[in-house]
Amino acid sequence: MTYCTAVRIDAGLVFLSDSRTNAGVDQISTFRKMHVYEVPGERVMVLLSSGNLSLSQAVASSLRVQMKQATQPRRVENPADSAEQQAMMDEGRNLATATNMFSAARIVGETVRRVHAREAAALKEYGIDFNINLIFGGQIRGEPPRLFNIYAAGNFIEATPETPYFQIGESKYGKPIMDRVVDGDLSLDEAAKCCLISMDSTMKSNLSVGLPLDLLCYQTDSLRVTRQALIDAKDPYFASLRERWGAQLRKVFSELPDPAYWD
Amino acid sequence: MTYCTAVRIDAGLVFLSDSRTNAGVDQISTFRKMHVYEVPGERVMVLLSSGNLSLSQAVASSLRVQMKQATQPRRVENPADSAEQQAMMDEGRNLATATNMFSAARIVGETVRRVHAREAAALKEYGIDFNINLIFGGQIRGEPPRLFNIYAAGNFIEATPETPYFQIGESKYGKPIMDRVVDGDLSLDEAAKCCLISMDSTMKSNLSVGLPLDLLCYQTDSLRVTRQALIDAKDPYFASLRERWGAQLRKVFSELPDPAYWD
Repeated sequence: MTYCTAVRIDAGLVFLSDSRTNAGVDQISTFRKMHVYEVPGERVMVLLSSGNLSLSQAVASSLRVQMKQATQPRRVENPADSAEQQAMMDEGRNLATATNMFSAARIVGETVRRVHAREAAALKEYGIDFNINLIFGGQIRGEPPRLFNIYAAGNFIEATPETPYFQIGESKYGKPIMDRVVDGDLSLDEAAKCCLISMDSTMKSNLSVGLPLDLLCYQTDSLRVTRQALIDAKDPYFASLRERWGAQLRKVFSELPDPAYWD
Repeated sequence: MTYCTAVRIDAGLVFLSDSRTNAGVDQISTFRKMHVYEVPGERVMVLLSSGNLSLSQAVASSLRVQMKQATQPRRVENPADSAEQQAMMDEGRNLATATNMFSAARIVGETVRRVHAREAAALKEYGIDFNINLIFGGQIRGEPPRLFNIYAAGNFIEATPETPYFQIGESKYGKPIMDRVVDGDLSLDEAAKCCLISMDSTMKSNLSVGLPLDLLCYQTDSLRVTRQALIDAKDPYFASLRERWGAQLRKVFSELPDPAYWD
């Protein structure tokens, strides 16, 4: 299982992902689910993935290959590229050249569709759904930061002031705290704290969501990655946050008046 | 959708259920999901139901009919009774005669299986699963209170000191608070407060879980229902609990230190 969440606030964007992958309970591994695409001073984009790992890795690396080849003076023809991939590369459409985040989200969506065209039928023969769900956000110079949720069909929705965050994977345990706290006025650090508490609630209730965590806080208009942390079991801040949040919650609980329906 | 939860503590049992039923978003109704079977001074049992309403109503009323007919001096033969139902009634096995809660849970499980035998095939023709999930608990004189989770196949598990609560229906949003707070030492009122906060988190995140709520607190060895409340939108305690819990949560959140990974 997976839990990833991202928040769009005035101060920027916060991305948080766990790294546990499992196929059954006896095959558990650690894979990073955060992929960063950066052209320093010009654009920063972050992709969080849930679903079938082979599919999300295919999408993430395909996006990177497109970017890389675009920066080479002459692209090397690769006979393994699909016609659509070649067409996209010929048109020079990739995350490095997209003129705005909406176009970038479309490129991610098209890449998902290409992976679908290549993989879905074979997976279906084994009874495996084409299961992928992505959060994609960032900023391209000249635009404010934007945040998207991209589905398996390649279509997507964008975060708005009313719904400023997205969750993918095991989202329910960690939703109540997001609903109560997330607000456009939060500072980047506060939004990160909220995501970490939401992750803690999820990890407590679902063993298949686990450490280490990737946290990235993007500051509006910085156009480069300056705040990124890998949070593991020895991380003192996260350990203290988990303990204090739990203790304070129990304290608030005990201080609230008991029901008096039958006194 | 539905959310029901029940807790077994030393002081007794707490049962809480919502009452919203929906078939699509444009067909929403209010149905009570708590059924009480009581022989004052001798036994109290409570059934909470989720899943297909027609099935849970069939199980709940079948259990009541069995109890009623057992108290009549001579049972009237009903040609509509299935062979198994007749057999159970002939053997006098029902919630009023069960000698312990394990037997009572088996009677509920058998009743679920009878409803399955009668309904499942017809439902399947319409592509409808036999979907029912029950919480069943109470006390029979001579035994401590016990609590069970009974599945659609009629099998069941019992709450233990390590896992003293069950949830059915939309269970995830309200699980973190239960995991943090529920403990055998809680008072009945504290356990009720915990269930109500868990319900609040669920109602905030899933519109198809809704008021009014049925709350029943059973005191160990009372062997009768003394504490039962119907909580609607005008209930001052629940309204204040929701507001104060939300406000305190935000206060605790703001008081916890922010992450300092990049200072």
